Amino acid sequence: MKVRVYYEDTDLGGVVYHSKYLNFCERARSELFFEKGKSPVWQDHHFVVQKLEAIYHKPAFLGDILEIKTNVVKIKRTNLTLLQTIQREGETIFELTVTLVCLKGNKPTRIPHYFLEIFDENHL
Amino acid sequence: MKVRVYYEDTDLGGVVYHSKYLNFCERARSELFFEKGKSPVWQDHHFVVQKLEAIYHKPAFLGDILEIKTNVVKIKRTNLTLLQTIQREGETIFELTVTLVCLKGNKPTRIPHYFLEIFDENHL
Amino acid sequence: MKVRVYYEDTDLGGVVYHSKYLNFCERARSELFFEKGKSPVWQDHHFVVQKLEAIYHKPAFLGDILEIKTNVVKIKRTNLTLLQTIQREGETIFELTVTLVCLKGNKPTRIPHYFLEIFDENHL
Amino acid sequence: MKVRVYYEDTDLGGVVYHSKYLNFCERARSELFFEKGKSPVWQDHHFVVQKLEAIYHKPAFLGDILEIKTNVVKIKRTNLTLLQTIQREGETIFELTVTLVCLKGNKPTRIPHYFLEIFDENHL
Repeated sequence: MKVRVYYEDTDLGGVVYHSKYLNFCERARSELFFEKGKSPVWQDHHFVVQKLEAIYHKPAFLGDILEIKTNVVKIKRTNLTLLQTIQREGETIFELTVTLVCLKGNKPTRIPHYFLEIFDENHL
Repeated sequence: MKVRVYYEDTDLGGVVYHSKYLNFCERARSELFFEKGKSPVWQDHHFVVQKLEAIYHKPAFLGDILEIKTNVVKIKRTNLTLLQTIQREGETIFELTVTLVCLKGNKPTRIPHYFLEIFDENHL
Repeated sequence: MKVRVYYEDTDLGGVVYHSKYLNFCERARSELFFEKGKSPVWQDHHFVVQKLEAIYHKPAFLGDILEIKTNVVKIKRTNLTLLQTIQREGETIFELTVTLVCLKGNKPTRIPHYFLEIFDENHL
Repeated sequence: MKVRVYYEDTDLGGVVYHSKYLNFCERARSELFFEKGKSPVWQDHHFVVQKLEAIYHKPAFLGDILEIKTNVVKIKRTNLTLLQTIQREGETIFELTVTLVCLKGNKPTRIPHYFLEIFDENHL
């Protein structure tokens, strides 16, 4: 999963605004579903972020092409934890550890098989 | 309705990113509802943008306090047209003419009284 | 130029937030530079939006793949006007006519040859 | 520091998009400067995010008024760590621990007195 950095992603510091890296990682998570012909919303089930830890190693700049890699750290009954890294030309510039909880409506629920299949294949 | 310009609103040019002015104007429109204790979503009715024209007179900068003024230009059965200006210290830096259509579900519908009351009071 | 619609682009109405279409069009304009190995910022020259007109024909949804087409309408000494359309599976869902003025620092200036080359090739 | 939740902050899940909470916290940090008549950019010095940890307790919704509280956890020579909470009607819905490093140009540098004054007053 690659993303290009555009004007909208930068701020007056000339680099990518800090919360945009989370958006890039979210795009990569959604792309895991789309590339299997699935949707991140299924029969009233979807994931929301429960907690995350982010480390900013280097800034990214307008025009950069960034590569996002996603690995599964842990799968539990109702949530899962992913490690996502953003690289530029092979160098890691950002790391995200994110725990997502599966909701049905607005209540935590067992992750359905429809979603588990996607993450099983990405397991470390 | 006043908004402050923050980092997230700027881009590497050092000024507010062009589409953010539309967001500021949308905030002002929503605030018309909130200040009357109403919601912009009511019984499956809400507004979406049908067309708009924007003129950019001057850039805005980090920390600027911008004032958004909203006037009704025209009210028709299913849509209405607003003129919104963004000013900084009394000087107009941006103008938006926006036509909003009222939807029920996803079909155009007559604007309900619940919404009309708000815009009648803002009439030119 | 194709873009995917992600969660961040949608709002609670379930469709793409109105100002995001302007971002998509800006990405396509920047991509015109990048694909020629150029940058939209060159020797203190860059473009800013002077005015725009947008027409919203149909909504876009999570997961949609949108195609953005850019044509030059008019090139003048210091500004140029583009017509950009966003299509989904061949159907136009959004149209933007946007006038960009070339700045050197913060003053309008003659569009340099470095930029003109890009838009000449996209002329209608 | 209070912020209102607008359409642009929500996604199709009907709640605030996860990275927007970081924007809200950034606004509150910038407001610490503005309310003292200062700027977050001073003589080529500014802060960037080095790392952060976020916990999402409850979702926020369109129209919500959120209150952001900022406390200093630790001040070191070139960086400082803040604890920021977002509350709705007195209930904490989001917590952020964020470490900011002071840059001069793009190199870490001792936090200048101009900035330290602001954070001293917010010390736990």
